[in-house]
Amino acid sequence: MKFARFDHEGTPSFGIVKDEEIIKLDGSLFDTYQETRIHYPLYDVKLLPPAVPTKIVCVAHNYRGLIEEIDEEFPDEPVFFLKPPSCLIGHEGAIIYPPVAHRVIFEGELALVIKDKMKDIPEDKALSYVLGYCCFNDVTERALVEKNRLLLSLGKGFDTFGPAGPYVVTDVNPNDLELKTYLNGQVMQHDTTRNCIFSIQYILHYLSKVMTLCPGDIVSTGTPEGIAPMKPGDVVEVEVQGIGRLKNIVKMCGES
Amino acid sequence: MKFARFDHEGTPSFGIVKDEEIIKLDGSLFDTYQETRIHYPLYDVKLLPPAVPTKIVCVAHNYRGLIEEIDEEFPDEPVFFLKPPSCLIGHEGAIIYPPVAHRVIFEGELALVIKDKMKDIPEDKALSYVLGYCCFNDVTERALVEKNRLLLSLGKGFDTFGPAGPYVVTDVNPNDLELKTYLNGQVMQHDTTRNCIFSIQYILHYLSKVMTLCPGDIVSTGTPEGIAPMKPGDVVEVEVQGIGRLKNIVKMCGES
Repeated sequence: MKFARFDHEGTPSFGIVKDEEIIKLDGSLFDTYQETRIHYPLYDVKLLPPAVPTKIVCVAHNYRGLIEEIDEEFPDEPVFFLKPPSCLIGHEGAIIYPPVAHRVIFEGELALVIKDKMKDIPEDKALSYVLGYCCFNDVTERALVEKNRLLLSLGKGFDTFGPAGPYVVTDVNPNDLELKTYLNGQVMQHDTTRNCIFSIQYILHYLSKVMTLCPGDIVSTGTPEGIAPMKPGDVVEVEVQGIGRLKNIVKMCGES
Repeated sequence: MKFARFDHEGTPSFGIVKDEEIIKLDGSLFDTYQETRIHYPLYDVKLLPPAVPTKIVCVAHNYRGLIEEIDEEFPDEPVFFLKPPSCLIGHEGAIIYPPVAHRVIFEGELALVIKDKMKDIPEDKALSYVLGYCCFNDVTERALVEKNRLLLSLGKGFDTFGPAGPYVVTDVNPNDLELKTYLNGQVMQHDTTRNCIFSIQYILHYLSKVMTLCPGDIVSTGTPEGIAPMKPGDVVEVEVQGIGRLKNIVKMCGES
């Protein structure tokens, strides 16, 4: 199944994506829903971030290549940080380059959306709590983070620094997906989730021992090597095999 | 005005606290509301965290005394981190000592609840976006944070590590309030918000340049010196002048 959240003439809804159409659902993906008879062509709707999470949890240092690239130590256990839900934007939303920023980078990632409340869940049950998978761009003001690691949530927390989408796809194996990030059409990151240090189920198991994950929460699973700066006017795309290609444009603050 | 969120027989509501009673409100503090004729004695309701925030933002290293105590540098600009909303508990809720934790400390703080959506707000307008002020305990698994600063949100993000309350008070000067934290009745932290490096209005102004603050969001403003470990069975109380005294008990995981 391929789900999406979308806006049509000001009303947000969930939908099922089939071919080039979206079928409107009555209800919520996190509760009960029914297909309606209302269809829209995909080009006629605005895709929204796939959920309205109570939190966005990201994994740092999860790809072997990145850890070597930025000269970090291999972690014994997953390293997590939070991004504020106010940073979320959807497919084709604008990443606004903050006037105070010096080096805004992309970090293409595979993310997942939690379906059911989860706390203290064993590894072998963890994936059954996932609604589905989407692309995520963990946009970061790297200059701020390099100044002081305590500034991580700030440097990753600017409005528009959390593009997510375009769809939430249910039937993929999250531990075996190819991931590519394109900057102005050129491949900048290219890896597979097979090269993650921690599997998706281990990440969720570990996280659920600390905090309750709620329906709609987004967990992003780390970025591979190849992160690089962007500038206003750039087009950045995160593509995950079997899911789709999340496209966003970087704009100056105040630019329409 | 002294507001509270409370549970009476399973229904959460907002209320106004007067003397030893709570007057139930119809509606939301963040929208419109009316007083009802329903009153409860305070001892008859369960106080909840004062809001359901989309994010909890905390300031680190904001009291001169703490910075000297933990041997940090004085920051040029406020340092922020996020706690997940899943960590919130109310007055008299139990702080659960995680089985994996080694050194769980209290950090008594003054927090505030955002009333209106705020983005890019100048310092001299910032306080008008605040609904009111409450006590907050930024409970932290310090062993995890000391191991790796990237583990900050994890060490501060365990369920029950965010006691907030008991009330939200509107008519105080947040930059001139005495703050005390008690462990088993003994004063452990004692300072005043006059000793904060960054004023409340500067913190909000600075933060609103980065991220949109939403109605109900909680911003906690840092802890003074005197932080110390707690163990199961301990009673911890955070008292802020003019607001009240937030009391919580530390329990073992699995203890009822």
